[in-house]
Amino acid sequence: MIAEAVRRELAEALGPKALLDREEDLRLYEFDGGVDKARPDVVVFPRSAEQAAAIARIAQKHKVPLVGRGAGTGLSGGAIPREGGIMVGFSRMNRILELDLENERAVVEPGVVNLELTNTVAPMGYFFAPDPSSQKACTIGGNVAENAGGPHTLVYGVTTNHVLGLEAVLPDGRVIQTGARWPDAAGYDLTGLLTGSEGTLALVTKVTVRLMKKPEAVKTFLAIYDSVDDCAATVSEITARAITPAALEMLDGTLLRMVEEATHAGYPLDAAGVLLIELEGVTEAVEDQAEQIKLACEACNAREFRTARSAQERDLLWKGRKNAFGAIGRVSPFFYVHDGVVPRTQIAPTLHEIGAIGNRHELTISNIFHAGDGNMHPIILFDARKPGDIEKAQRAGFDILEHCVKVGGSITGEHGIGMEKIDLMAKQFNEETLELMRKLKQVFDPAQLFNPGKLLPAGRGCAEIRQPPIVGPEDLL
Amino acid sequence: MIAEAVRRELAEALGPKALLDREEDLRLYEFDGGVDKARPDVVVFPRSAEQAAAIARIAQKHKVPLVGRGAGTGLSGGAIPREGGIMVGFSRMNRILELDLENERAVVEPGVVNLELTNTVAPMGYFFAPDPSSQKACTIGGNVAENAGGPHTLVYGVTTNHVLGLEAVLPDGRVIQTGARWPDAAGYDLTGLLTGSEGTLALVTKVTVRLMKKPEAVKTFLAIYDSVDDCAATVSEITARAITPAALEMLDGTLLRMVEEATHAGYPLDAAGVLLIELEGVTEAVEDQAEQIKLACEACNAREFRTARSAQERDLLWKGRKNAFGAIGRVSPFFYVHDGVVPRTQIAPTLHEIGAIGNRHELTISNIFHAGDGNMHPIILFDARKPGDIEKAQRAGFDILEHCVKVGGSITGEHGIGMEKIDLMAKQFNEETLELMRKLKQVFDPAQLFNPGKLLPAGRGCAEIRQPPIVGPEDLL
Repeated sequence: MIAEAVRRELAEALGPKALLDREEDLRLYEFDGGVDKARPDVVVFPRSAEQAAAIARIAQKHKVPLVGRGAGTGLSGGAIPREGGIMVGFSRMNRILELDLENERAVVEPGVVNLELTNTVAPMGYFFAPDPSSQKACTIGGNVAENAGGPHTLVYGVTTNHVLGLEAVLPDGRVIQTGARWPDAAGYDLTGLLTGSEGTLALVTKVTVRLMKKPEAVKTFLAIYDSVDDCAATVSEITARAITPAALEMLDGTLLRMVEEATHAGYPLDAAGVLLIELEGVTEAVEDQAEQIKLACEACNAREFRTARSAQERDLLWKGRKNAFGAIGRVSPFFYVHDGVVPRTQIAPTLHEIGAIGNRHELTISNIFHAGDGNMHPIILFDARKPGDIEKAQRAGFDILEHCVKVGGSITGEHGIGMEKIDLMAKQFNEETLELMRKLKQVFDPAQLFNPGKLLPAGRGCAEIRQPPIVGPEDLL
Repeated sequence: MIAEAVRRELAEALGPKALLDREEDLRLYEFDGGVDKARPDVVVFPRSAEQAAAIARIAQKHKVPLVGRGAGTGLSGGAIPREGGIMVGFSRMNRILELDLENERAVVEPGVVNLELTNTVAPMGYFFAPDPSSQKACTIGGNVAENAGGPHTLVYGVTTNHVLGLEAVLPDGRVIQTGARWPDAAGYDLTGLLTGSEGTLALVTKVTVRLMKKPEAVKTFLAIYDSVDDCAATVSEITARAITPAALEMLDGTLLRMVEEATHAGYPLDAAGVLLIELEGVTEAVEDQAEQIKLACEACNAREFRTARSAQERDLLWKGRKNAFGAIGRVSPFFYVHDGVVPRTQIAPTLHEIGAIGNRHELTISNIFHAGDGNMHPIILFDARKPGDIEKAQRAGFDILEHCVKVGGSITGEHGIGMEKIDLMAKQFNEETLELMRKLKQVFDPAQLFNPGKLLPAGRGCAEIRQPPIVGPEDLL
């Protein structure tokens, strides 16, 4: 519970209508896209960097924790106020401040919804590249905080590749401006440091992003395999032909069957895996690459290769991918979506290892993931009503991520560390590196008030891990 | 002069053959690609991270400044030991440690020459994308330190876009490992923070880079204009057609005439400007885009559009660009190459402003630059033998960079800040932001021993500026 003085000072700084603290209101802010849960003491809605700075100063003065929040669609607990305190909601800072199409640039407030930016510039032929599956709801501020990805990460990269500069409020209330136009940034790359820092260093109040011109042509394919190894091998085969598809998604057999039974998208029930492949570019290039993609799939023993001949057929091919989580929900009421990265050549062995981990823990694990990036999303099915099942699912998830690190990968592809994977940081980095990260945190936030308990393990060991499962709505990935 | 104890401890740590301290040897290490000059007290050549760490500990113990050095081709004074001390040369850490072509990755020591990596993987169809014009000599460690660019930055980005992870020695001798595989990095992006930090935070001892597959086809064009404005307008026109050329270089009339007189490449003597445009990709895409490029040039009143029909013709088109500095040297024995960025739509007004600045200072300024990025490289001709001319050239350079910042650009495109532009940092960033950068420096290097006097203004005002001109060898850009 925070002191009445904090509430009063916040109301004075922002006005009484910019603050929620009734029990029934706060309840709406205790979740994010996962099932982690913690209630803030008060939620405030600044309208400007000045107001955000005033909030930071009040938090500082009273030593109250502070957590930023976009739309709350994150999957690793980034927006969960573990220690209560002040939640800063950015829903009122949702203006597109500047569109400079000729220079392919936009300046937005952090509360702008990801898809809204693309919808705004689409009539002029542009788009904002990062496209997490939550893009209808998630905000650009949240994308920056988590360095969000999406199915088109393969060709366009993650959020950090599209952020040119930031305005941000430091925990002491000072406002900094970072970055410059691409290509280079003068001095230390603060833009890159803040992007993906999960609200632990600063509150972002303005984002300069890169816009891109929509490609002339899009073409979508489905390749069907009797062997997971062949399916995975195709990913390297495509890369070897110097083609970077816009999307290169893999669904394994377990997932295919769940999806087909739910969506009747026409996926084969007996396949071991499929690749959903999308090409973008100028028409002639796409046509040429389409032929190459077909040859690559055939060289890896695809038993069938389908090309979408129309927008309808294209939507049908994507239907299974986009409705996967609803489909899983029909089979298993609880599931845990994980997020790790392996080298592309390690996809097949990793899928086998995931299968073995599932067997060991007596859990079904299915896979639907960004294969082109080696960004695995194993989905662990379990039953939260069965005692011990959650813990088994968590253990299996940890085992999978440990494997990812062991084969040269990473514990996160696009969901961030949050509270979910905080303890796995020590698997990825040595103590010197973690200590350096802690010192950087200290520079920004000496009182440790910004999003406490996220991203960085305090070094107190495993006791502090709380790693609850994620139960999926449709737009989880 | 450093203490004999320092010399002795260094010799003990590295062996006597890993150390130079005779006057005539040190003289070779007082320059970089500019004309800034300062002599180290001793140059050491580590063979491993452990030896580099030992050097850092000795520097720390005796409070001696330490400066890393790749090949010394930098243009902003990054490798100049302003305060003497220990220079760490990486020429003996020049091994390619790992090639993982299937995953498009290499792990190299910092002393590996940029072009050597590309030459090594070229037979298998790969290349390392950053290609500064000094690529025959410059090292990948130096590229990382300066976040180097090159003519192909437009499509491939700068060095930071190709560095996945680092091993680095901190000033206290501890060794950290940063980064992970693309796409995301877990925790704070230390790889991004160190890339471009100009040796002020750490000594990089290992670099994991991304390799790329060589494109199937390359096509090169020259578009000739009677108006600089039309020439510049073409850059936006090409972008508006959703085409990203591999290179999009502009030469203005002044430069063209100098170049043609020296190289007889066939450039028109009476043109106001030309664009040198290169496309890469699959054959059909390149053919299709070639047509679009031609239309874009014609729409902007190009008076002539030439296509290279053979490798010989392609080399001829590049000849002027590649030999520009030699050509300038025939006309003016001294010149100062600057480096700033403006929004693409500001290229034409900026060229006019550069002309006006030249007139004001009674100096000829010609332009040859990466137009696609808005990365200007005004070349200020002057005569160092005429009293006051150097100062005029410096003043003109500052005026140009101030203009770049004013129109929404940046004080550096690819050359770094070094000692050259240290005082211009205050034009780009507010004091809060600079103060934060200083605190980050403090975390890494509390004793301020790593590359002192670079990148960050100490806040002591303009008195500390030393901004000497750069007199150009051929491979300056």
